[in-house]
Amino acid sequence: MWSLEQVAEHNSPASCWVIIKSGVYDVTDFLQEHPGGAKIILKYAGRDATSAYEPIHPPDALEKNLPPSKHLGPLSDIAAKFVAHEQENRKKTKDEARVEKAQLERPPLGRILSLADMEAVARKVLSHKAEAYYSSAADDHITVTENARAFSRFFFHPRVMRPVGKCDASTTILGFKSSIPVFVSGAALAKLGHPLGEVNIAKGARTTSIIQMVSSNASMSPAEIIAAAAPSQPLFFQLYKNADDTVAEKRVREIERLGYKAICLTVDAVIPGNREKDVKSPWVIEDLERGSPQVHVEGQGEDDGDTIFGTAGALIVNDDRNMTWEKTIPWLRSVTTLPIVIKGVQCVEDAVLAAEAGVDGVLLSNHGGRQLEYSLPPLEVLYKLRKQRPDVFDKVEVYIDGGVQRGTDVLKALCLGATAVGLGRAFLYAQSAYGESGVVKIVRILEREIITAMRGLGAASVKDLKPEMIERVDWEPLPRARL
Amino acid sequence: MWSLEQVAEHNSPASCWVIIKSGVYDVTDFLQEHPGGAKIILKYAGRDATSAYEPIHPPDALEKNLPPSKHLGPLSDIAAKFVAHEQENRKKTKDEARVEKAQLERPPLGRILSLADMEAVARKVLSHKAEAYYSSAADDHITVTENARAFSRFFFHPRVMRPVGKCDASTTILGFKSSIPVFVSGAALAKLGHPLGEVNIAKGARTTSIIQMVSSNASMSPAEIIAAAAPSQPLFFQLYKNADDTVAEKRVREIERLGYKAICLTVDAVIPGNREKDVKSPWVIEDLERGSPQVHVEGQGEDDGDTIFGTAGALIVNDDRNMTWEKTIPWLRSVTTLPIVIKGVQCVEDAVLAAEAGVDGVLLSNHGGRQLEYSLPPLEVLYKLRKQRPDVFDKVEVYIDGGVQRGTDVLKALCLGATAVGLGRAFLYAQSAYGESGVVKIVRILEREIITAMRGLGAASVKDLKPEMIERVDWEPLPRARL
Amino acid sequence: MWSLEQVAEHNSPASCWVIIKSGVYDVTDFLQEHPGGAKIILKYAGRDATSAYEPIHPPDALEKNLPPSKHLGPLSDIAAKFVAHEQENRKKTKDEARVEKAQLERPPLGRILSLADMEAVARKVLSHKAEAYYSSAADDHITVTENARAFSRFFFHPRVMRPVGKCDASTTILGFKSSIPVFVSGAALAKLGHPLGEVNIAKGARTTSIIQMVSSNASMSPAEIIAAAAPSQPLFFQLYKNADDTVAEKRVREIERLGYKAICLTVDAVIPGNREKDVKSPWVIEDLERGSPQVHVEGQGEDDGDTIFGTAGALIVNDDRNMTWEKTIPWLRSVTTLPIVIKGVQCVEDAVLAAEAGVDGVLLSNHGGRQLEYSLPPLEVLYKLRKQRPDVFDKVEVYIDGGVQRGTDVLKALCLGATAVGLGRAFLYAQSAYGESGVVKIVRILEREIITAMRGLGAASVKDLKPEMIERVDWEPLPRARL
Amino acid sequence: MWSLEQVAEHNSPASCWVIIKSGVYDVTDFLQEHPGGAKIILKYAGRDATSAYEPIHPPDALEKNLPPSKHLGPLSDIAAKFVAHEQENRKKTKDEARVEKAQLERPPLGRILSLADMEAVARKVLSHKAEAYYSSAADDHITVTENARAFSRFFFHPRVMRPVGKCDASTTILGFKSSIPVFVSGAALAKLGHPLGEVNIAKGARTTSIIQMVSSNASMSPAEIIAAAAPSQPLFFQLYKNADDTVAEKRVREIERLGYKAICLTVDAVIPGNREKDVKSPWVIEDLERGSPQVHVEGQGEDDGDTIFGTAGALIVNDDRNMTWEKTIPWLRSVTTLPIVIKGVQCVEDAVLAAEAGVDGVLLSNHGGRQLEYSLPPLEVLYKLRKQRPDVFDKVEVYIDGGVQRGTDVLKALCLGATAVGLGRAFLYAQSAYGESGVVKIVRILEREIITAMRGLGAASVKDLKPEMIERVDWEPLPRARL
Repeated sequence: MWSLEQVAEHNSPASCWVIIKSGVYDVTDFLQEHPGGAKIILKYAGRDATSAYEPIHPPDALEKNLPPSKHLGPLSDIAAKFVAHEQENRKKTKDEARVEKAQLERPPLGRILSLADMEAVARKVLSHKAEAYYSSAADDHITVTENARAFSRFFFHPRVMRPVGKCDASTTILGFKSSIPVFVSGAALAKLGHPLGEVNIAKGARTTSIIQMVSSNASMSPAEIIAAAAPSQPLFFQLYKNADDTVAEKRVREIERLGYKAICLTVDAVIPGNREKDVKSPWVIEDLERGSPQVHVEGQGEDDGDTIFGTAGALIVNDDRNMTWEKTIPWLRSVTTLPIVIKGVQCVEDAVLAAEAGVDGVLLSNHGGRQLEYSLPPLEVLYKLRKQRPDVFDKVEVYIDGGVQRGTDVLKALCLGATAVGLGRAFLYAQSAYGESGVVKIVRILEREIITAMRGLGAASVKDLKPEMIERVDWEPLPRARL
Repeated sequence: MWSLEQVAEHNSPASCWVIIKSGVYDVTDFLQEHPGGAKIILKYAGRDATSAYEPIHPPDALEKNLPPSKHLGPLSDIAAKFVAHEQENRKKTKDEARVEKAQLERPPLGRILSLADMEAVARKVLSHKAEAYYSSAADDHITVTENARAFSRFFFHPRVMRPVGKCDASTTILGFKSSIPVFVSGAALAKLGHPLGEVNIAKGARTTSIIQMVSSNASMSPAEIIAAAAPSQPLFFQLYKNADDTVAEKRVREIERLGYKAICLTVDAVIPGNREKDVKSPWVIEDLERGSPQVHVEGQGEDDGDTIFGTAGALIVNDDRNMTWEKTIPWLRSVTTLPIVIKGVQCVEDAVLAAEAGVDGVLLSNHGGRQLEYSLPPLEVLYKLRKQRPDVFDKVEVYIDGGVQRGTDVLKALCLGATAVGLGRAFLYAQSAYGESGVVKIVRILEREIITAMRGLGAASVKDLKPEMIERVDWEPLPRARL
Repeated sequence: MWSLEQVAEHNSPASCWVIIKSGVYDVTDFLQEHPGGAKIILKYAGRDATSAYEPIHPPDALEKNLPPSKHLGPLSDIAAKFVAHEQENRKKTKDEARVEKAQLERPPLGRILSLADMEAVARKVLSHKAEAYYSSAADDHITVTENARAFSRFFFHPRVMRPVGKCDASTTILGFKSSIPVFVSGAALAKLGHPLGEVNIAKGARTTSIIQMVSSNASMSPAEIIAAAAPSQPLFFQLYKNADDTVAEKRVREIERLGYKAICLTVDAVIPGNREKDVKSPWVIEDLERGSPQVHVEGQGEDDGDTIFGTAGALIVNDDRNMTWEKTIPWLRSVTTLPIVIKGVQCVEDAVLAAEAGVDGVLLSNHGGRQLEYSLPPLEVLYKLRKQRPDVFDKVEVYIDGGVQRGTDVLKALCLGATAVGLGRAFLYAQSAYGESGVVKIVRILEREIITAMRGLGAASVKDLKPEMIERVDWEPLPRARL
Repeated sequence: MWSLEQVAEHNSPASCWVIIKSGVYDVTDFLQEHPGGAKIILKYAGRDATSAYEPIHPPDALEKNLPPSKHLGPLSDIAAKFVAHEQENRKKTKDEARVEKAQLERPPLGRILSLADMEAVARKVLSHKAEAYYSSAADDHITVTENARAFSRFFFHPRVMRPVGKCDASTTILGFKSSIPVFVSGAALAKLGHPLGEVNIAKGARTTSIIQMVSSNASMSPAEIIAAAAPSQPLFFQLYKNADDTVAEKRVREIERLGYKAICLTVDAVIPGNREKDVKSPWVIEDLERGSPQVHVEGQGEDDGDTIFGTAGALIVNDDRNMTWEKTIPWLRSVTTLPIVIKGVQCVEDAVLAAEAGVDGVLLSNHGGRQLEYSLPPLEVLYKLRKQRPDVFDKVEVYIDGGVQRGTDVLKALCLGATAVGLGRAFLYAQSAYGESGVVKIVRILEREIITAMRGLGAASVKDLKPEMIERVDWEPLPRARL
C-alpha cells in the first residue's frame, strides 16, 4: 500500500515508478526495453500513467513484460481515491472538449449511407492522436491515396438479360464461410478510438457473419478478443514475427490454442514506416493547448529522435527483419497446423514465390500505404498477376486490402480473381464512431452495395464475376463527389 | 360525403384512410403493396395527402391500384373547402420560399444560350426534392460525370473546302422522321419539376419535330401524354417489364393501342441504383426546417431502411429481374408488332447479342449513370463497337444516351455510327425551368449547334459524318469553362 | 445642313436616318442588308450613332455600302456642336469608368516580361465588349484552351556543347525576310481595343521587321493600314471570300494593287462560330448599369435571335459557304499573281489536298478556337503531318497559329517543320494595352525568348531545329504558374 | 583616408567611387566590365555599397577584378563610424522586418521531419530577393515542377522476405566515399540566405560524410570554402568555363591546387535562363515599400533592359558559349589531372557523346529547371538512357539532380542505374533556415528515409537496387499532401 508521496520519490531514470490502475510498478530496469522508448515513460515517472497506458496496451502487457517482483502492490485507498478524483476533475484539454462536442453532434446511424459517411463522423469524434494514428500513412500519403484511386481506373462491362432475381454474395475464405467476400484486415490499437476496441469488431463480425483478422498489435489481447466471439465464429491472427524464434513460436502456439483459425504472417512491416502525421500529432496537441506554436532556440541541440517513429515504431521494435522464404515458412509450418497467409506481398514475383512456398493464401497489401511510399497499389498488382501469372490463382487464395470504399471496389477485385477483400481503417472508424453498431452498419452497407452491383453486372453469385467483366481504362476519373 | 373528423379516425395501419384531391380512399389493404412502402402513406393517415401524392403519381394511379370499393367518395363541401384553405394558408417551407424567389429571378428565355444555361436555371427553381431526384446518380456520381467527360476525349478532323451552304441535320429513327438526330430519352417524374410535366415535353417535341420516349414511370399516364401530341407525331414507350408476364402483356397491348410507335425495353434497371443524394434529400429538408441537423441518440436502433431506395426504388419494385435474351425477346415479339429497342446495353458483347436477337434498335445507355457505378460511358462502348464489331451497325440502329450537352457531342456519336442521341435530364430541366417553351428552346439550341458544327466539319447532311472525322485523343481536356 | 429635330423624325424602320461623325445618312433601304442586322441600327434611328459605329467599321464602310444619294449631308454647326457636347458630358457607364481607372494603373512597360503579363494588362484596360470579343471562343472554350495546352505536351531534347555564341533567329516567309519566325495572324477589329487599331500593329511590325497578315474584317481599310507601313515592308492579306465571285475578284485585285504580298484564303469560318461570351457581353453591360439582372416575364416570346451570332456573325454574313478545292483555288489563281496561303486547315488530309492544289503555304489553324469546338489543336495536326506525311513540308510552307505564348512554343513548331508561327490575340492585346509600343514590346520579348531557347537547345539558326530535338510526352504538365 | 564628402563628389559615370567595408574604390573604368551591368553600381556611386555588394560577391572579388591602383585606401575613422552608425540606425525595410519576425518564429529543429518542412521554414525566413533568386526558374516554372513530378510516375515493386536487418546506404562517387548516395549539387550565392553561406554546407557535409560540389558562382571563394572542410573531406568544383581559355585554365589549376577532387563542367548554362521571378523581385520590394505599384507614364521609353537577366545573368556573362565535345574536353584534360564530370546533359544522345569523350561522370541535369523551359526531366532522361543505352552505365558514372525531395526519389534514380543524386536548392534552404545544423538535419532526414525505403524494398545495400524493382506507371498521382 503506497502513498503518492512515496511513489513521487521515484521520478528519475535511476529509479522510476509509475501508477497504473491504482497499482504501483517499478519500471526502472524496463526503461531501455520499452518498445516506445524510455522518454515517454519518464514523462510519467513518479505519478499516475493510466490514461496514457491504457488505450495502447493490451491488459496483459504488464504481466507479460514486467517480472512479478516489479509489481510493487496497490496504492493506499486514500491515494487511489485522490488519483481518481484528480483524473475526474482534471481540466479537459481543448481536444477532449472538441471530441465531447462532436460525440453529441453525431448524426443518427440511419443517416450513414456509405463508408465515406462513416469515416466523416469518425474523423470528427476521434481524438487528434487517434485520428492521426489511424489516418497517417507513409511520407506524403501518395500510396494510401493511390491505393484507392487505383479502383477508379477499372470500369465494368455490365451484362444485361441475365437472371439476378436471386443473388448470393456469400463465399468461403480458407474454407470458412463469409456472408460477403469481405474480411476485417489486421489493424492495430482499436481502443484508441473506442473503449471496447477490438471487441466491438469481433461482435460486429459475429452479427454479420464475416471474418476478423486480429492484429499482433491489437490494444486487447487475443484471448480477450476471441472471448467476445461466438463459439463457431472464425477469427484469423495477423502475426508480427518476433526476431527470436522461441518467443515467436510461443506466440503462435498460444494463438492456435486460443482457437484462431489461420495465421497471417506480416512481411511488409519489418521496420516502421515514416508516418509524419502520427509523429507530429503530439506537437499539434501541445501547440493547441499552448495557443501558439513552439519556437526554435538557437544553441539547443536537435531532438534526440526518440519520437520519430511515432506510435507505429513502438509496436514492432522486436520484429524479425531477416525473414526469408527458405527459412521462415518452413519454420512456421513446423510450429502450427493452421493455414498460413502471407500478408504484404507487393509484386507479382513475390506472389509467385509465396505460391511456390506452399502457403494457403496471399494477401496483396502495402499495409494501407503506411510502409513503403510508392509501393504499387494492390489492385494494380492483382491486375498484373491476373495478366502475367493466372496460374497463381489456382494454387493459393489471393486477397487484397487497401483503398476499398464501395461494393463496386470489392467486385473489381473479385472479377480479377481475388477470393475476398480486406478493410482495415474502415472498421476502426466504424467502431470509433458508433461502437459495435457501427461495425454492423458498414457490413450491411457493403452487403447492399455488393448485391446491387452484382445485379447491375448480371452476376447472381460470386462465381459469375469474371475478368472479362472489367476493363482498365486509360483515363483517370475525377475524384468521387461528396454529396 | 365525409367530414374531416371521420377521416381522422382512420389514422393507423389497422385502418388507414387518406384524402386525395377531395376524395377519400381506404388504403389499409394497399399499404403492404405500395411500391414506395407503407411508411410514407402512414405519414398522411387520416388526413390530406394530395401534395405528396400528386407530383409523383400519374392521375390514373388510384384507379389502377385501388378497387372501386375503396373509393369511399368525396369530402363534404365544408371539409373540402377547409382542406383547400389550409393548403393555401399553410406556412411555406424554407425550400418553397426559396423556389418562389428563384422563379421570379429567372433570366429571360432569350438569354439561355446553351443546355448548361438551362440546367443552371432549373437547378435553382426546382424544389430540393426534385433537384435531388433529377440530378442524383449511383454512388459517388463517377459514372454520370464520366458519361459526359467521355465526349471530351474525342476531337474532330474537320474538313474544309466542302460545300455546306445548304446543310440538313434531319434524319429518321426506326423510319420516323426527326428534325435533328436527337430524341427525348425516357426519364421519370416530370411533374416533380413542373405541373404540366411530360405534356410539356410532348408539346415541345411536336413543335420541333423530334421524338419523345415516354417512361413507364412518367408522372402522367401514357394516354394523357399521347393526347397532347399531334395526330402524326411519333412517340416511343420505355417499358419497365413487370415480373408478371400477364401484367406486362396488358401494358404493352395498351401502349400499342394508344398509338405509341415503338417499345424500348429497359434492361439496365432491374433493381434501383444506389442514389444517395435522392435518399438524403428528405433529411436535408428536415434539417433545413429544423435549423440544425438531427443527432444520434444512443440505444435507438437503426432506421428500418424503409427509405433507402429513395424515389427511384419505389418505381420499379415489381419489375422483372429474370429477363433473358432467349425468353424475353420472343415473348415481347409475340405480344406486339411494334419495333423493339433494347435500352440499357452497356458492352459490345450485349450489343452483338441484341443484334442477333433480331431487335430493331440498341440504345447504349447506363441509365444516365444512375444504376451501376463504373459502367463504361456509352460513348466509349460505341467507340469499341465501331472498332470491334462494325457489322452491328448494319443490322440494327444504334443510339446512345448519357452526358450529351452540346451539338458537337451529338455529332461525335453520329461520326461513330449512332443513328441518333437521346437526352433525358436536359428535357426535365428545360420543362422545369420554362415549361413547354423551355423544351422548344433546348431543341432550337441543339439544332443551331448541330448545324454550326456540321458546317465546321464540312458535312452537309448526317450521311457525311464519318468515323475518320473523329479521333480519340490520349489526353483529357480541362473541364468546360463556365463563361 | 440638318437640325437634330429633322433627323429625329426619321426614327423608324419606315424611315431611318442616323448621324455618323456629323454626317446624316438615310439607311432605311440598307437596314435589311446590314450584316449585323437591322435591330442594332434601329437602336440609333433618328440620332447620333458614331460611338457604336466607329470602333467596328473601317472608315470607308459608309462609302462602300451606301449609295451617294443616301449621304444626306452634314448636320448644322449648332447641331454638330450640341452632339459633340452631349457626347463629352454624357455620364460615363460603369464599364467606361472602370476602364479609365485601369488605364491609369497600368504598370510601366518595362515591367512587362512576358506575353502573359501583356495580356493581363490588356484584359484590364479593355472595355467589356472588346475583352469579350477578343477572348471569346467556341462553345465552352475547350479548343482555345487545348490549343495552348498542346504545346505543354512537347518537351525538348536539348543538345549541349554546340557553338551558340552567334545565334540568328531570322527566317523567310514566302521569300520575305522576317526577324524572327513569327508573324501577325489575321485578327479582326483592332480598333475595339485602341483608336489606332491595326495601324499600331503595322507600325510595330515595321519597327521589328516582322510580317503582318491584315484581316478582311479589320476595323481599318487595307489602304489605311498599308499606308502606315514602310515602303518595303511586306504585308499579307487574310481574305474572307465573298459568295459572289465578282465581288471577291474586285477585292483581290484591289489588295494586289495596294501592294499586299500574299493572299491568305480563310477556309475555316464559312459561318460564325458559337461564341457565347461575345453574345452575352451586351447583357453583362446592361445588367451592370441596371444594378441587377433582367428577369423573365411569362408570356413574352423568345428573343428573335437577332444577336445570337454576336460581333462575329455580322462580319461574315456574305461569305462563300460553297468553296471547293477544284473550283476556288483555280479561280483565285486566275485573279491574282500573289502567292496563296490556305488559312484554316485542320487535318492531315486537307494539308495534303492543299499541297496538291498547288498553293504556296498552308496555315494549320482552327481560328484560335473560335469556330468548331473540338477541332484538333494545330500543333497536334502539325505533329501528325510530320509523322504521316513529311513530304508535304517539301511542297509547301507550313505555318500554325493558336495558343502560342512563349518562345519555346515557337521553337516546338519549328522543330516539327513549321516555317513560322502566327499570333493573333497577342497583338490585339498588346496594342490595346500600350498601342504601338506594346506591339514592339511583345516582338522583343519573343525574340529574346526565342534566342535564349535556341541557345539552350544548341541551335545557332532556325535550320538547326530538328524533329529529333522534340518529344511528345505521355503526361500533362501542370498549368503554367503565374509568378 | 577619405572623408564622405570627398567620396560623394565621385557620383557619376565620369568618375564613380564606392565604399565597401570602409575601403574606397574607384570603379569608373570597371563600370562597363561589371557582369551585373553599370546601372546597379551607379545606384551606389559616391556612397557606401557594402550591403548590396557583400551577399553576392566572394571576398576576393575586388582583389581579382580591380587593379591595385583603384584601391584608393580607407575611409577616415570618423567617416567609417558614421557609415556604420547610419547602417545600424537605418529604418528597416518592410521585408527586413518581416524576415526578422519569421526568424523568431522558426519551429524547433526537432520538428523538421522532411525536406518539405525545411523548405517551408526557409521560404519564410529568406529575404524576398533571396527567396526569389533561389526558387526562381525558367519561364513559367514548368520544368522545375516537372522535374519533381517525374519521380511520382515511378512506383516500386518491393520485395519481401529478404534480410534487411543490416542495411548500408553508403556508396562511392568517383572513388570517394559517401555515407549516402546523395551529394550537394552546385548552386550559387549561399550567402544570400545566411551570412556563413557555403561554409555552412561544407561543415554540414563534413559532419555527415557527404560530398559537396562548390559552384563557380559561390558567394565565397573556393579557398575559403575548402578551408572549412576537414583535411580528407572530398569537395568537387562546378566549373563555368570562361570564354578565354587562359583565364579558364588559370581557374582550373587554382582549383586543383586548392585540393578539390573533381571538375564538374557546366554545359547547360551558356547563357542565363529567363527567370522572371528573380527579375521581378526588386519591383516587388519597391512596390512593397512604396505601398502601391508603380504605374506607366506615357511617352517615357521602355526600360533599357539592364536588369532583365536578374541575378543569374550577371554571374555568367563571360562564360564560353562555343564549347564543343571535340575541342573543350581535350583542352580540359590537358590542364588538369582531376576526374571530369559533365554537368547538364539533357538527352540520351549527349550522354552517349559524353561517355565517348572519355569523361568520368555524367550529371543528367537541366539546372534545376532554371535554364531551358521544357527540358525533359532528368529522371525521364535517366529512364530513357537505361532503356536505350544501358551500356553507358558501364563506361561512366551517371548522376542526376533536380526535383529530389525524398529518400524514395533517391532510390528510384539508383534503381535505374544512377550512382548518386544531387540536391541544390534543398541545401540552400537548409542553411538559410538553420545554418550548419540545417544542413546536417536534411542529410540525417534523407539517410533515415533512404534506409527505411531500402528495407521496405528488400535491399540491404545500394547494389541490391535493380531496374526490375521500379515501374513507370501510366497515371499521374495526385500532388504530395501537405500534412
